[in-house]
Amino acid sequence: MRPDLRLDNGLILTMNDRFEVVDRGFVEICGSNITAVGRMTEISNRPQPHEVLDISNHLVMPGLINCHTHAAMTLIRGMADDMPLDTWLRDFIWPAEARFVTAENVFTGTQLAIAEMFRSGTTLFADMYFFEEEVARACIEAGMKVLTGEAVMDFPSPSHPTPESTLKHTESMATQYRNHPLVRVAFAPHSIYACSKPLLQSIAKESRRLNLPVHIHLSETDEEVTNSLSGNGLRPLPYLLQTGISERLIAAHMIHTDQKEIELAATLDMGIAHNPSSNMKLASGWAPIDTYTRSKIKCGLGTDGAASNNNLNLFNEMRGTALVTKLLCKDPAAMPARKVVEMATIGGARVLGVDNITGSIEAGKAADILVARLDQPHLTPLYNIWSHVVYAMHSSDVETLFVNGRMVMHKRVLQTLDMATILAKASKLNKKIQIDLFDSK
Amino acid sequence: MRPDLRLDNGLILTMNDRFEVVDRGFVEICGSNITAVGRMTEISNRPQPHEVLDISNHLVMPGLINCHTHAAMTLIRGMADDMPLDTWLRDFIWPAEARFVTAENVFTGTQLAIAEMFRSGTTLFADMYFFEEEVARACIEAGMKVLTGEAVMDFPSPSHPTPESTLKHTESMATQYRNHPLVRVAFAPHSIYACSKPLLQSIAKESRRLNLPVHIHLSETDEEVTNSLSGNGLRPLPYLLQTGISERLIAAHMIHTDQKEIELAATLDMGIAHNPSSNMKLASGWAPIDTYTRSKIKCGLGTDGAASNNNLNLFNEMRGTALVTKLLCKDPAAMPARKVVEMATIGGARVLGVDNITGSIEAGKAADILVARLDQPHLTPLYNIWSHVVYAMHSSDVETLFVNGRMVMHKRVLQTLDMATILAKASKLNKKIQIDLFDSK
Repeated sequence: MRPDLRLDNGLILTMNDRFEVVDRGFVEICGSNITAVGRMTEISNRPQPHEVLDISNHLVMPGLINCHTHAAMTLIRGMADDMPLDTWLRDFIWPAEARFVTAENVFTGTQLAIAEMFRSGTTLFADMYFFEEEVARACIEAGMKVLTGEAVMDFPSPSHPTPESTLKHTESMATQYRNHPLVRVAFAPHSIYACSKPLLQSIAKESRRLNLPVHIHLSETDEEVTNSLSGNGLRPLPYLLQTGISERLIAAHMIHTDQKEIELAATLDMGIAHNPSSNMKLASGWAPIDTYTRSKIKCGLGTDGAASNNNLNLFNEMRGTALVTKLLCKDPAAMPARKVVEMATIGGARVLGVDNITGSIEAGKAADILVARLDQPHLTPLYNIWSHVVYAMHSSDVETLFVNGRMVMHKRVLQTLDMATILAKASKLNKKIQIDLFDSK
Repeated sequence: MRPDLRLDNGLILTMNDRFEVVDRGFVEICGSNITAVGRMTEISNRPQPHEVLDISNHLVMPGLINCHTHAAMTLIRGMADDMPLDTWLRDFIWPAEARFVTAENVFTGTQLAIAEMFRSGTTLFADMYFFEEEVARACIEAGMKVLTGEAVMDFPSPSHPTPESTLKHTESMATQYRNHPLVRVAFAPHSIYACSKPLLQSIAKESRRLNLPVHIHLSETDEEVTNSLSGNGLRPLPYLLQTGISERLIAAHMIHTDQKEIELAATLDMGIAHNPSSNMKLASGWAPIDTYTRSKIKCGLGTDGAASNNNLNLFNEMRGTALVTKLLCKDPAAMPARKVVEMATIGGARVLGVDNITGSIEAGKAADILVARLDQPHLTPLYNIWSHVVYAMHSSDVETLFVNGRMVMHKRVLQTLDMATILAKASKLNKKIQIDLFDSK
């Protein structure tokens, strides 16, 4: 079959098992897949594609993977900052959510998040929020990949009166989207402190029956650990295992772990979503991510919601992961650039259980591809592409983005979303949320 | 006199003493100065300018101030990363510098640095390097403000055979640039460990005689403190005072200080240049910047050289300062956004001793002005402009930049530098430096 498109003359970070870098290489795309990757000197062996894009002086790498976010929280980006966690939650985030979290607003907030994520090179994100059917709808419309996670807690959510209803809804979404090219579905118990043991046990059972991932906040704060020890007699991870949740586990944060938990994590089918900006901004602590990666635990990066970041830019998370780990380990060699790029790409794909289909530039994988300019002052000269990506590159260097072979951004213009309309809608909502909040005080 | 230009309808962060924010405001520019700032409702009282720029939906704030860098080190950006400090210095940085630091290359490297700094909103930087006459020349050509600092050590530098020659050169530059609109001159002893006591004493004397600032690396590493204690019987700051250096002092880093040094610093005519990215990347430690600001010590931000950052983007430094301080203080309220914006603007001007002429948007000050787009997904919605600048904004949002009223960038296009030529020159040099380095091994 004649390929649809070939990207010619790029510098390719394949992120394959050998971390191969191809200078002056090509990537061939047919339908939604990559069909060949190689050096320009080898293209004479390849069939002529319908279209060739010359990307000399550009970097080609896998689209970035955001392993933990609450996309629609973009609507309350910067609403409340620089304050203690309980004031932030009780006086701002929860009252705001009580007012703005409707199906319609989640759709708008997710569109805004997708616009931002496309423009910073993200092609797949794991979400945990409410009205996830709207998240799926926004992603399908825009051509974004998502692992949805309808948040479940003991108490009623904005979208469901009972946890049972949420679980049923998750099952029906899983059925609806089975084999969908963009949408996958996870169970998303909020946390061990917001979900009773019986609820966690039924999620364990259902997730096994339906073969779905379980996406949960775990060991985010010191308090969570203290309470788990006093309430459950166990630290968070062993307690979670006791409920039966032990497979396809996506643990967001994992900041406060002890040596035994780390050893335990290494034996499990689990991945960690590390959220450096949010963990710093809320002063939650710092995950020992260097120890996790050295222990061969699957690790990816997340932005968390825009309310605690305040953006969804994985370039910030890469830079933060490398720099802060060096500082805290007192070792400039800790978390070298290549390891961090791995977390943002194939590592994230492993965490979300999709490394067989995405996360690297290899024949047979989905064409989830980021193309970035290199002809910029802050990227000149170029000695080492790994260090450039982590320490020097900005999200705005991302020029073109493909998801499943579909060009969702080109020359920084979104191809599948009407940005002006989304920005106008979100700004209008902001005014409403602000007025509502002030009225209620 | 009829004003040259008025910026209309912007959201203005004045950074005046009251941290006034003007929504739908104007900034009037005449020659190199700001002549008026106010609300759009007040413009009927103002004379008609030659030109009006409508900047609805844009932020206006003072140009950012980089209090510590080695501009020409852009030429070895990313040459060596993720390695212990001594390997980095001995095997890479020093051998590379021995080869590439010539007058011509410093000029090129500084041009590259200015291109990058303009494109990330910087209008003034304090440099410490060699061939500073070339740094001054590059800045004058481009219209950038600089405080030059020809590095002086006990041993010969690439530009001067003896420290005496460097001091003479500094004096002659100070004479040459007296009252220059863009260039000021400082003495720049490298550090207390690279300068003998007699050398520091003569710098103390000369800087007092010529009324010039003294820009020095101070308390950057644990080792420096230990060696100062054992060699001088004093910690770095009291030792420096003993040499007579106590006025117009710009101390870069100031990471490892004790309570007494902090109290001492608060009584002195000194400022601190905090370099978060470099301090993390080299694992040097973290300056107690919250304590410094609470102690009313003048504090600004720096990027350090591109070899240890790896860019010259003060938005990264703002974000890092806020986030890492929160993490280390275990307090999400530590280093709130406004305080960080202060460090990047008027605070930096105080550190460099130029707060009477720049660092805020006020009538009478120089028109050193940054204009940034707000109509971006990652900046929508807008609740709080302070948190947007620190946590959400990217350097690429800077659209237009003025230095002394001259437009040096407009719609992200540099107006005074030929970017393509500079990038080509720097890339060529990179190949030469790489070949030389490999040949020497």
